[in-house]
Parts: sequence; C-alpha cells; structure tokens
Amino acid sequence: MKVETLRWADNKLEMIDQRILPASFEYLTYDSAASVAEGIHSMVVRGAPAIGVAAAYGVALEALRLPSTLRQAQGERSEFDKGMEAGFTVLAQSRPTAINLFWALKRMRSVWESMKGQDNAAVAERLLAEAHEILAEDIRINRAMGAFGAQLLPDGARVLTHCNAGALATAGWGTALGVFRSAVEAGKKISVIADETRPFLQGARLTAREMVQENIPVTLITDNMAGFMMSRGEVDAVVVGTDRVAANGDVANKIGTYMVAVLARRHNIPFYVACPLSTIDMNIASGADIPIEERSADEVKGFRDYHWAAEGVSIRNPSFDVTPAELVTALITERGVVRQPDRDKLRALFK
Amino acid sequence: MKVETLRWADNKLEMIDQRILPASFEYLTYDSAASVAEGIHSMVVRGAPAIGVAAAYGVALEALRLPSTLRQAQGERSEFDKGMEAGFTVLAQSRPTAINLFWALKRMRSVWESMKGQDNAAVAERLLAEAHEILAEDIRINRAMGAFGAQLLPDGARVLTHCNAGALATAGWGTALGVFRSAVEAGKKISVIADETRPFLQGARLTAREMVQENIPVTLITDNMAGFMMSRGEVDAVVVGTDRVAANGDVANKIGTYMVAVLARRHNIPFYVACPLSTIDMNIASGADIPIEERSADEVKGFRDYHWAAEGVSIRNPSFDVTPAELVTALITERGVVRQPDRDKLRALFK
Repeated sequence: MKVETLRWADNKLEMIDQRILPASFEYLTYDSAASVAEGIHSMVVRGAPAIGVAAAYGVALEALRLPSTLRQAQGERSEFDKGMEAGFTVLAQSRPTAINLFWALKRMRSVWESMKGQDNAAVAERLLAEAHEILAEDIRINRAMGAFGAQLLPDGARVLTHCNAGALATAGWGTALGVFRSAVEAGKKISVIADETRPFLQGARLTAREMVQENIPVTLITDNMAGFMMSRGEVDAVVVGTDRVAANGDVANKIGTYMVAVLARRHNIPFYVACPLSTIDMNIASGADIPIEERSADEVKGFRDYHWAAEGVSIRNPSFDVTPAELVTALITERGVVRQPDRDKLRALFK
Repeated sequence: MKVETLRWADNKLEMIDQRILPASFEYLTYDSAASVAEGIHSMVVRGAPAIGVAAAYGVALEALRLPSTLRQAQGERSEFDKGMEAGFTVLAQSRPTAINLFWALKRMRSVWESMKGQDNAAVAERLLAEAHEILAEDIRINRAMGAFGAQLLPDGARVLTHCNAGALATAGWGTALGVFRSAVEAGKKISVIADETRPFLQGARLTAREMVQENIPVTLITDNMAGFMMSRGEVDAVVVGTDRVAANGDVANKIGTYMVAVLARRHNIPFYVACPLSTIDMNIASGADIPIEERSADEVKGFRDYHWAAEGVSIRNPSFDVTPAELVTALITERGVVRQPDRDKLRALFK
C-alpha cells in the first residue's frame, strides 16, 4: 500500500495530518514557508526525512508565492530576497533536533544562491524541481537502506521498534519500517513489536497502522514493557530511525530510544539505526552537542484534549534523547551497513 | 493530609475509586467478598499493601454477610464454612501477582480456623477486628519503613519513582512515597520525579496528586524519559514499591520498574525498594516463579474509553516485571534496610 505522506497538487503542498491518525485520514494544504513551518512545529508532519522534504517544499512555495514582478535592485537586497530569507528563517525555527530540516534548507539555499539575479519565476520553478527531487531521492534512499537492512534480520525475526520511522516519517517506504518492508518483500517472515511512544503515540497510531495495513504482524506495547519482552526472550533485534547522528556515531532519536538501547545491550540484542546520510551531522562532534527540543507540557498531561494528570504537577517534555555510539550495533545507510560506528567510519561514508 | 484509601463505615468497607482520580474523588461501598474481589480486579483499589487490607475486609464482610443462624452440622461442612471458602476463593482469584493478597488471606484464614465451632457472629466480629488490625499495622509499618528509608536520601535529593507506592497503594502514608514523606518530615528537601506509568497512569494521576497535595515538588515525565533524566544527571536515587519479593531478593513490581533499575545501574544511581515483610514471599525461590498478570488489551489501546491505537493491532499487557536482586541497592523494610539483598539476608529478616 502506497502512503503519500506529502504530495504536490494544484501548485500546493498537501500533507497527511498525522495528529489525527488513525481515527481520521485527511490531507492539509500548505502554500507558504510559514504555513509549512507551522505544520512541522505542530507535527502535522513529523519524522526527520519527512520534515526535510516538507521544508524543501516550504522554500519552493515561498518562491512561488512571492510576487514574480519583484526584481533585484542594485546595491540592496530585493524584496524577493528578503522574503526568501524570512522563509528560510521561519522554516529553520520550526523544530531544532532533526538535522534533515537543516540539510534540506542548505540544499535549497544552494540552488537559490546559484540562481541569483535570474528571473524569480525561473528560480521558483527550479526550487520546486529540487523539492520534487528531494522527495523522489528520499524514497530511493529508503529502498536502498531497506535492502541493506533486510539482510541483517533473520527469517522469523521479532523486531522491536520505537516511534514511527515508517512511510509516514519519510516520503514513503520508511527507514526502520522500510527495513521491515524490504525484509518481507525478500520473503522473510518478520513480526514487529511497536512501542506506543508517549506522549505523541506515534507507535500506537502510526507504526501499528502502517504494519496492519500491510499485513505485517505487529504487537503494540507500552514503552515500559520493552524490558519485559526482552527479558522473556521475545525480541530478536531492535531497529529504529534517527533525527540526527553526530560525527562520532551518537544517535539522537525519539525520547525513549536510549532506554531501549541500554536494555538491548543488557540482553545482547542487536540495536540497529536506519539512517540516511542526510541525517548524519559531521559538524557536531558528539551527541552532547545535539540540541534537544522540549515541547509543551500539555502533551504529557494527557493526549490531545484529554488530560488526566493531577493539577499542579510540574512537567518535563524532552522530545528526543541521545544513544551513545557504543550501544549501536550498526547504522544502516543507503551506502551500506556501518558496524560499530565511529568518527572514521562515518567520515569514510561521505568520500 | 490524611488519605483514607480504605475505611470502615456503617458496617461496610468503603474504598476510594482510584480509576477516576484525580478528576473525581469518590468512595465506593463493598459488602461481600465477591464485591471486594471485583473492586481489586477492576483496580478501584490497587497497590500491594492496599490489596492485602481490602482482601482482609473482604473476608470479614463475608462472615458478616452470611446468616448468623447457620450452624456447623456434624460430619459435613456447614453452609457458613462453604460460604467462607467461596469468599476466600473469589478473593484469591482477584489478582495474581501481589503476594500481600495471599498473605492477608492466609492470616484471616488462620484466625477463622482457630475459631471453628464457635458462634458465627463471634467469628465475624473477630475477623473484622483482625482486618482493622491489618489496616492499623500497615500504617505503622509504612511509618517504620519511612523512617529507615528517609536516612538513605541526602538532603536535596531528586528521587525518581515509578507507579504509585503511596498512601493510595496502602492503608495510608505509603511505601516509596512514605519514604519521601518521612524524609520531608525529618526536615529534608526532597523533589520527586514521577513516571506517568502507562497504561493505568498511576504516576500521572495518583503519585502526582499525592505529592502536589503535600507540597512536595513533583515533576511528571512519560515512562520513556527516565533514561534521559538520568543521563542528564537529574536523578539522585530511585525508590519504588513492590508487589512481591522472591526469597532471593528478585523484585516484582509495576511494569517498567525493570527498565528503571537497568538504567539506574548504568548511571550508578541507587535503586531502593520499599518493601514490608508481608510482600516478601519466602516460598518462591526467584523472580522467574512469580506469576505475572496479563491484563485486558483495552488498557493499552488507550486510556479509559478513549482509544487511539490503530485497529487490528495485537496487544500485550503484562502488568508487572521482575527486577533481579543484583540490580537492587537495598530493600527498605520495617525492620531496617537490607543492602544487596540475597537469600540469607531475607531469611534472617524473619527470625
């Protein structure tokens, strides 16, 4: 089943509203950088690769939206340039942790800057083509990671995943769930254990839905049951996605990933991270330097508008945590599997 | 603030309905063993010590309820005896993991059997007195544990707890939260980090409420944030309760406790278990033999009637897990602190 997390229609960006899944399935329409930024911030779209694709379209939308009559005036920044800069800025501020956002903005900026002085309509067209290419590339990359990752999973493997690193977290196919899809496509029997992933419940709502729709057996547990399942010998491997990998191989991913990694190590269960190169940030030495978003207390008080927490309690809501490289059995990238990742191995990937 | 989790009024047992806290505060009334068993099963009352007290009252209520005219007929079991046996059976089947349930039933049975042949009204009166004594004892024991445990916490300690081992899990004061209360009473500054504790959310609803009501600073996190907090150096100690401790010191407690213990060890954070002697089961060699209750899938699909999980997903719902003794820094009992618990140290406790 093909899931189009983001799609281009009628010169607008449409994105599945992931806040209301699985009860409702609905596309929301976006026509500017600011509206896409709000869609990212409010988690209409989430998942590092999908955020990157959305941001690329956000830049293209801004170029399309700005009056094409604007022309660069000599010696000062044109209105068009100012508008584009504002668009880049609002998108860059939408969420801090996933590096794919900044990776996509940098790539779009480089296209934009290469066309300085050219007709704005042509610039907009070229930026849109680049966004389309980023989307198409993302699916190709997921397929490549899937093929590499599938080889790591034995037939019959019971694989635990955290959060949703699926088609809904990407332009399609998925990173961690892409590995499961590729394994099944290769004829392997795979069953999935999905952590529900509080507070946004990406596991219960999104991963469970994706796997049910493709008839891949999936069992939902609360996040605090992963240790029990491992202690009972019911988990053969862990595969997760990531929002940013530091140059030394430390992995930032959805809050709770670190706990799963620590438990996997205790139980000698391999812990794999599906990770396109766009998620690796060679400019950050270690996980300690990765900015960790703290989100609204409301998310922890309950779910959506249903609040169950006692009144007056303080709340913390870090959205990500960092798993040190030493706990990572391997990174699965589109260029192959990197076992026991470290600085040298990551550097080699980019050569 | 005194919390009367269970109270005796008008010859009936009243219990706070913990399913609807904190939004609503309401007592439900119980007049038979079967109704108390249903109250335990449906988690109107929960927490190992509170379940024990409730079961004791269940036995007394059954004796009070059965017609006092019944007399033991020679050579066959009387109707009264049959009724009492049925009462013991239904209570014993209410929940499988917490040993306090069986401990309380055994104690009530021994009182009952010591009075065989006596007037049923006298038997009922004596059983009720025993239930009252178990309740009063529970509070005294919690106070004693609190005093011992408080000495383990440094002034200013930031203490993480899982689930609710508070006044609401006992007849009053609490086991883990009793330690916090005693530390505060002794003049120490303590702040609490409460895991929300999916799926029943005892942390978000009950622990947070108890601490807020007593002005003990409390921060709520989702269960998957405990590792993050520890990795940031924001947790100085962990104190939890328990539902059953095996003879070798293995600890069964609310699902997720094991994950916290594994993380505490990784971060060299002391992991304490507040544990009245009634929770220690010397008849069970190790945690592997402790029966682990699996509850309804509905609890994991959402919360109460609000279901968010994708349709068609399989679900696991183990309600407890086992933390091996090697991860337990110390048990806090009413007879003192048992560091690095093992079979010999536990046996010595009962001498």
